Amino acid sequence: MTDLFSLPPGGGFDDVRGRGFLTRTSLTDAWAWIDAHAPHPLDAVTAPVAPGLAGRVLAADVVAGAPVPPRPLAACDGIAVAADDTLGAGGYNPVPLMRALPVSAGDPLPPWADAVLPYEGVERLGPLVSALMPVPPGEGVEPAGAWAAAGAVVLPAGRVPRPADLGLLAALGRAAVAVVRRPRVRVVLAGGPRGAGAEVLGTLLPPLVARDGGVAAVCGPLPVDGPNLGAALAAPGADVVLVTGRSGVGPDDAAPAALAAAGRVDHHGIALRPGGSAGLGVVDGVPVILLPGEPGACLATYDVLGSRLVRRLAGLPWDAPYGVARAVTARKLVSEIGFADLYRVRRDGDGRLVPVASAAVGGLAAQAAADGAVLIAADSEGIPADTMVRWWCYGGADAMVHPDLGEGDSP
Amino acid sequence: MTDLFSLPPGGGFDDVRGRGFLTRTSLTDAWAWIDAHAPHPLDAVTAPVAPGLAGRVLAADVVAGAPVPPRPLAACDGIAVAADDTLGAGGYNPVPLMRALPVSAGDPLPPWADAVLPYEGVERLGPLVSALMPVPPGEGVEPAGAWAAAGAVVLPAGRVPRPADLGLLAALGRAAVAVVRRPRVRVVLAGGPRGAGAEVLGTLLPPLVARDGGVAAVCGPLPVDGPNLGAALAAPGADVVLVTGRSGVGPDDAAPAALAAAGRVDHHGIALRPGGSAGLGVVDGVPVILLPGEPGACLATYDVLGSRLVRRLAGLPWDAPYGVARAVTARKLVSEIGFADLYRVRRDGDGRLVPVASAAVGGLAAQAAADGAVLIAADSEGIPADTMVRWWCYGGADAMVHPDLGEGDSP
Repeated sequence: MTDLFSLPPGGGFDDVRGRGFLTRTSLTDAWAWIDAHAPHPLDAVTAPVAPGLAGRVLAADVVAGAPVPPRPLAACDGIAVAADDTLGAGGYNPVPLMRALPVSAGDPLPPWADAVLPYEGVERLGPLVSALMPVPPGEGVEPAGAWAAAGAVVLPAGRVPRPADLGLLAALGRAAVAVVRRPRVRVVLAGGPRGAGAEVLGTLLPPLVARDGGVAAVCGPLPVDGPNLGAALAAPGADVVLVTGRSGVGPDDAAPAALAAAGRVDHHGIALRPGGSAGLGVVDGVPVILLPGEPGACLATYDVLGSRLVRRLAGLPWDAPYGVARAVTARKLVSEIGFADLYRVRRDGDGRLVPVASAAVGGLAAQAAADGAVLIAADSEGIPADTMVRWWCYGGADAMVHPDLGEGDSP
Repeated sequence: MTDLFSLPPGGGFDDVRGRGFLTRTSLTDAWAWIDAHAPHPLDAVTAPVAPGLAGRVLAADVVAGAPVPPRPLAACDGIAVAADDTLGAGGYNPVPLMRALPVSAGDPLPPWADAVLPYEGVERLGPLVSALMPVPPGEGVEPAGAWAAAGAVVLPAGRVPRPADLGLLAALGRAAVAVVRRPRVRVVLAGGPRGAGAEVLGTLLPPLVARDGGVAAVCGPLPVDGPNLGAALAAPGADVVLVTGRSGVGPDDAAPAALAAAGRVDHHGIALRPGGSAGLGVVDGVPVILLPGEPGACLATYDVLGSRLVRRLAGLPWDAPYGVARAVTARKLVSEIGFADLYRVRRDGDGRLVPVASAAVGGLAAQAAADGAVLIAADSEGIPADTMVRWWCYGGADAMVHPDLGEGDSP
């Protein structure tokens, strides 16, 4: 059998290989560590106003330099008129108009016009246009500054531009805006479990990092017993390093020792299930997260720990990696005091939450069957059935409301 | 003044230039037209399992060819054992183990093992490993087929793969999957309003099309009085054509006539505000939507009409372009019977909906200040204050729940 005692020398940290974790860091303390190592978003860079701007994060307020619109516009198609010219007009009393200009919605009004008469309200006889109805001043007009006064903030810092915002920026004449630089996230594949293959984690993590506003570069798979892992940890050019696999307590779980040798391990073992073997450390000032190699645990720890780090650096809301909604539990969710438990859940036919994977056991197929997750705090013994809970909703906005159960109808 | 009567010859359709719409098509009928012209998603193509797969739509079920996992795996780090070997073990009665293999979570178990003992449950004396606790069969084990039986659907057709799904596909050994072909959407800029500039619409629409699963190609701005507009309508290679601007009742609103000349106009004038000058037609079997040039109206009609067409072809849920939630109105939303009204709204400090732009008047800055929109049906006189309504939530899942007002707390 394998000799448990022929272990490579560890760093100056508490090496748990072959004996298990004596203590684990609380999730609260792990989050505090993350917040301390990502105190504010990264620096600002300039990005063009183009489709790729959707998904970035504005680094500064966008302020209207002039009123928007700069002068009165037609709010509908019709005939621009001076409202006074239409006084007394009616179906039986056409009033000839000396001044009349066909306009489309969005057109600037001529200086003498202060209203727009719809085509249904005019009569044409040869070159003569007559009003068939009176129109008050301002009718059919979008006044100057209606959308924004000069100096008004039209898009706030921190905004993730929507498609309509891109149109607004183009309308304001902006060719480029300041955005938060995307965090560069190095994903170091340290083997991963022998059964699953590191390539699964190399496929899983980059789209998660992209979701959180970062750019992932995958490195490896690297053997853990040579110098490559340490070199990958210490190479410049990353804002965050994620190491996947080899984080546990087996004899070949050399990632913590490699981190200790390249920099320092601040925490190894987090009171989180799945993912209890995760770790946190620093190499040359760059925060490093050790993620377990089992894919379900890797995803869970990335969502709970890594996502928070990347989103804080990216300037995104970081309290949850998914939309947060409320729903009622269909069954009891059992939790062990001392561990934060991440239950993957699905909604049943009544929109209630049913666990599809226990907190201890993961697996990506269970993950695929889940509609979201419930994170249970370490001081909880679990959540009884028929209890309203906050949950992460994997499917985005579409999936948050059950077709037949709006939020307002929930118990 | 401009001569309203010097109009270019129209096609064989009801030319409304210079006189206004006598009738408008109901939104219900317009939706029926869209559904008839996009009866099913486009054909399937093959896409690699790579980050770009997130956001595509699976064209067929993904079925597990073998049980997942194919054989029992360790569910946690520890020592793989035969459970029978640990019978009677205890802290004061270490039971020497003849068979013991350190495993990490996710590792396959050796054939003789049926349980995993945590490291805390073993004692090591030289090469000898002893159990300090009994372990039942199956403890710490993920059984074969736990995640999916052979032949089970692990990802259904129509699924938009999530990051975790990419990891699952990699774990299943899939290098590529069948996805719905992305609709090719030609955006023809027919001038747009003189005040706003067609480039605003050319910036606005491509990210909206991308949101709906399509790929936009912008064409123009094109003058409406030459052959270019007709040529752009008739060119091959598009699944959908969107024409922006020049759709109204002014003398230079030549887009409907160009559509009539190149193919046919089925509907011009939709009972929708903003966006009443939108149109629907066909050129060489390709559905064409005429969108107004005023940016707010262009966005509204794209979201109400264009998005439905693109999403149906892309295989996405098409009943709304945004997530749908429920909230309570803070004020009355006035609506005219006979028109479907799209109110842009924001949530106030109590999470209640306040209009930021009337249905008649748009503007992208108002749009930027909105959190979403409420679509009021044509047969409604409006929605009173303090009424629970369904609304489209622009901000996605994050924005759907007010920080202090979970859905379950709503009135």
